[in-house]
Amino acid sequence: MTEPEEKENSMITTQRLEAFSDGVFAIAITLLILEIKLPDHAALEHQSLSQYLWNLWPKYFAYVFSFGVIGIFWANHHYIFKLYKRTDHVFNMLNVLFLLTISFLPFPTAIFGEYIETETHYATAVRFYLLGLVLPSGSWLLMWLYASYKKRLIDERLSDHFIQYLTRFFVFSNFFYLLGFFLSFFYPRASVALMIILALIYLFPPKKPEYT
Amino acid sequence: MTEPEEKENSMITTQRLEAFSDGVFAIAITLLILEIKLPDHAALEHQSLSQYLWNLWPKYFAYVFSFGVIGIFWANHHYIFKLYKRTDHVFNMLNVLFLLTISFLPFPTAIFGEYIETETHYATAVRFYLLGLVLPSGSWLLMWLYASYKKRLIDERLSDHFIQYLTRFFVFSNFFYLLGFFLSFFYPRASVALMIILALIYLFPPKKPEYT
Amino acid sequence: MTEPEEKENSMITTQRLEAFSDGVFAIAITLLILEIKLPDHAALEHQSLSQYLWNLWPKYFAYVFSFGVIGIFWANHHYIFKLYKRTDHVFNMLNVLFLLTISFLPFPTAIFGEYIETETHYATAVRFYLLGLVLPSGSWLLMWLYASYKKRLIDERLSDHFIQYLTRFFVFSNFFYLLGFFLSFFYPRASVALMIILALIYLFPPKKPEYT
Amino acid sequence: MTEPEEKENSMITTQRLEAFSDGVFAIAITLLILEIKLPDHAALEHQSLSQYLWNLWPKYFAYVFSFGVIGIFWANHHYIFKLYKRTDHVFNMLNVLFLLTISFLPFPTAIFGEYIETETHYATAVRFYLLGLVLPSGSWLLMWLYASYKKRLIDERLSDHFIQYLTRFFVFSNFFYLLGFFLSFFYPRASVALMIILALIYLFPPKKPEYT
Repeated sequence: MTEPEEKENSMITTQRLEAFSDGVFAIAITLLILEIKLPDHAALEHQSLSQYLWNLWPKYFAYVFSFGVIGIFWANHHYIFKLYKRTDHVFNMLNVLFLLTISFLPFPTAIFGEYIETETHYATAVRFYLLGLVLPSGSWLLMWLYASYKKRLIDERLSDHFIQYLTRFFVFSNFFYLLGFFLSFFYPRASVALMIILALIYLFPPKKPEYT
Repeated sequence: MTEPEEKENSMITTQRLEAFSDGVFAIAITLLILEIKLPDHAALEHQSLSQYLWNLWPKYFAYVFSFGVIGIFWANHHYIFKLYKRTDHVFNMLNVLFLLTISFLPFPTAIFGEYIETETHYATAVRFYLLGLVLPSGSWLLMWLYASYKKRLIDERLSDHFIQYLTRFFVFSNFFYLLGFFLSFFYPRASVALMIILALIYLFPPKKPEYT
Repeated sequence: MTEPEEKENSMITTQRLEAFSDGVFAIAITLLILEIKLPDHAALEHQSLSQYLWNLWPKYFAYVFSFGVIGIFWANHHYIFKLYKRTDHVFNMLNVLFLLTISFLPFPTAIFGEYIETETHYATAVRFYLLGLVLPSGSWLLMWLYASYKKRLIDERLSDHFIQYLTRFFVFSNFFYLLGFFLSFFYPRASVALMIILALIYLFPPKKPEYT
Repeated sequence: MTEPEEKENSMITTQRLEAFSDGVFAIAITLLILEIKLPDHAALEHQSLSQYLWNLWPKYFAYVFSFGVIGIFWANHHYIFKLYKRTDHVFNMLNVLFLLTISFLPFPTAIFGEYIETETHYATAVRFYLLGLVLPSGSWLLMWLYASYKKRLIDERLSDHFIQYLTRFFVFSNFFYLLGFFLSFFYPRASVALMIILALIYLFPPKKPEYT
């Protein structure tokens, strides 16, 4: 039902899929700034504008971090789409699901930036943000598993060794994001540290594809 | 007046039309998240942040559902534009009308997400959301009827049988969306069920074009 | 200084210019919906949600009208860019100016939709909206005059007769928008009528280019 | 590690990089208008709508100025990407950093527009806005230094003289933006003047590339 020949049926090339995805990436990444808002009138009664702008540091951090996360997902999206040679209806829908999780990220980012320095809501904010990272990471893995299964949609010339390497890499990523999520119930600070380390690892260039 | 030769006149290729439409789709779909907002100060006085985030489920549902609807319209837009071989000024304007209805969707989505769990405004919210679905569905049908009439803009090689199939399919869709809309005056819950069933049907891949 | 040979200097093809402009058009047109907002708590104390949604008609009208205006400018932008064969730095900057006026439109649209049914602010809202229409119309004319002067950037094969036709057409448009603006100081209702008539005229397909 | 051969590794062409960047530019530039807001109820109690709209001049100025800044960065981004022949992972990440600073600009713009006419917050608003200009200017220089070092990513045929010219030009720009930033601690008005002069200089077309 979802064999490669479906491609003519759904009639969306990977090129169109990439262009649409790029649009969603570009918009989601740019909307992040809307979560940093002007002070309301009361906010400047007991502090100067300068102090207010300094005190926004959790929001700047959330902005920069989520910008980096989406930017890295965008770079990886391009990297991986060079390996995809076909698409089909199920894969298009999985890609829409992935974009749904990317578009959702500005909301956990806003929660994270708003409550990270509060005593009461700190742990919940971290947990919700990590959930926001688990979702795209998980749907990313789904896309890969669907596409790489029996080389359904990927370049046939890719070596089995390389395919297994990517599968392991994406499974491990998911494992660590999930670990961070569960860790946040007990040690929120540790899960923030884990999340930062994961992002730094992703800053390194992805592995060069290997062909047989 | 609106014959195919108009194409040189309006001078917009279907390719440009698609690129512009993709832009609008990508933006409308990403703007949906802006309707899920941070709690105001009062909202966290009688509940924890965690409870607040759980209680947002109607908004998550509305976000996911509208994301799916726009995503499916986007996929279908690409599917159908492969069948269109030409464009003319009237068709461009019909496409702008269709995009107007897609761009409008974030507002009924916000109404739906805000009031679906209230006693008082539940029925109105459902009705308004269904109206929000009727509009793109109707303008979509208009585009198809205009383009397929005497094969005005579509690929001449398409079989009559296939054209009739699509016409029937789009007319039925409209009928069911309208049914859902009218149903919402009496049985709002049933119309929500109908709306979900319709969306699930659209998750299936569209029919492969048939040529003579 | 701004001769065609500048083109290699600024190194932006008309194709890139169009893609960037399309992006701005698509975003400005989709942002219009953000001006239609959810009711605040007080708004639903003395009326039902259904009444509230009906009473938003001035906002729906403003949304549809501005969507149409931007949609038509988009269509015309494509039409006219088929006539432009080159670009230079000055023209790029004029195009940025034009896009600035298009991006500005959501604000006068919001003012128009908010105050059109008030007794006190009706005339100002109309005047400000007409100003919002005068600005893109004027910068559009500037672009054309700059590009068509001695066929600086346009296709050399275009007939003088056709060039003069377009110049006259754009000058007249500007005249009528300005007329509407000044009229709004005395007869706001008449200027709204004029504005609607102008939009309807633009719904007709533009004239087919004539070559010598 | 980051040699040109990395390109096959990261697998992103400069073309894709430009398309994504164009998306971010187009969105950031269009979001600027969202910072100009409708009057709240209290705002129209002591002044007419007309007076309110006149009194928004600092916001119009901030809107136009930031629109110009982003527009010029967009034009320069295209200019410079014609000189780049390759890309690698580090350069992609530097470009994401640059886009982060462009996307950030709507926030300092809002601060600038909100407080430029206040007695108390004027100097801080100017300083913060100048910081908002220093950031993209600085990351722009970083990109150039990385790409031009030993002609790592740029066209090999470019003359050394021309490369040195651009390096000096970008270093000087950064120097003047930083000067404006520091000046704002003592003479905010002078730093605004400097900022305007710099923008006007950038309105001139960039220098034509020289090849050996």
